[in-house]
Amino acid sequence: MGKTHFKFIDEGFSEFSKRLTHYCKFDSKTYELPTKYKSRDINQTKKIEAEIFLKNIKSTDFVILLDENGKNYNSIQFANYIDKISTQQSSLVFIIGGAYGFDESVYERANLKLSFSLFTFSHQLIRLLFIEQLYRCFTIIKGEPYHHQ
Amino acid sequence: MGKTHFKFIDEGFSEFSKRLTHYCKFDSKTYELPTKYKSRDINQTKKIEAEIFLKNIKSTDFVILLDENGKNYNSIQFANYIDKISTQQSSLVFIIGGAYGFDESVYERANLKLSFSLFTFSHQLIRLLFIEQLYRCFTIIKGEPYHHQ
Repeated sequence: MGKTHFKFIDEGFSEFSKRLTHYCKFDSKTYELPTKYKSRDINQTKKIEAEIFLKNIKSTDFVILLDENGKNYNSIQFANYIDKISTQQSSLVFIIGGAYGFDESVYERANLKLSFSLFTFSHQLIRLLFIEQLYRCFTIIKGEPYHHQ
Repeated sequence: MGKTHFKFIDEGFSEFSKRLTHYCKFDSKTYELPTKYKSRDINQTKKIEAEIFLKNIKSTDFVILLDENGKNYNSIQFANYIDKISTQQSSLVFIIGGAYGFDESVYERANLKLSFSLFTFSHQLIRLLFIEQLYRCFTIIKGEPYHHQ
């Protein structure tokens, strides 16, 4: 959710997106809150963001939210999880929310909440963390030498 | 330790370095292992990296290692810690190691080990995480609206 303000984040994201296509069919979408909805009310903003997310999720999608209060994996555990879940599910959807987190309706739809750190990072920077970690995860699954224990 | 291979990391780092100078005197140094030492032996590599680190640390520096097995803070706790420690210490040195972590001699010199995540991230990407978090930490200390709880 939300346009990237920093060119370096787009560049890094596209670098790892390219690498990812060797391992899976990968696509990313960025949505922006229409200007007329850019209110100052945080709950209202989260509700409108939620509508956008939910409208774009298929009923068969397995939905993973990147959320501070989610489950903590290390890279090996995450790779094992993705390896297992991707044999059971045809489509995994990872959602990175806006600056204020998710509306309750998005939590209700989610199949897993995944935490990246106790630290809060800018939701733009999280895009980079996420995509490097997903790439790392596939190199672990394939036994490739990117990841050092 | 180690040159950045991705331009986007340098760009992001320099963006947040610039912002940081509003709050503190900040300087960063990157060291590269001389080609003749680029052996295949991991322990040997870590020893030579350690020599480079230790040679460049002053006895009065308060040394914080970014290390997977370090202490976990959230952003508020980290801000409180930095706020407190910077009244006691004149110079904080944060060290991001090479791809294989640190030699024992660096651990012995360290005053704190700080973990960013259970996940392993590329030690290049960690530079971005670190500097955004340090910037966030100062905005928290100053009560500025960058950080959302």
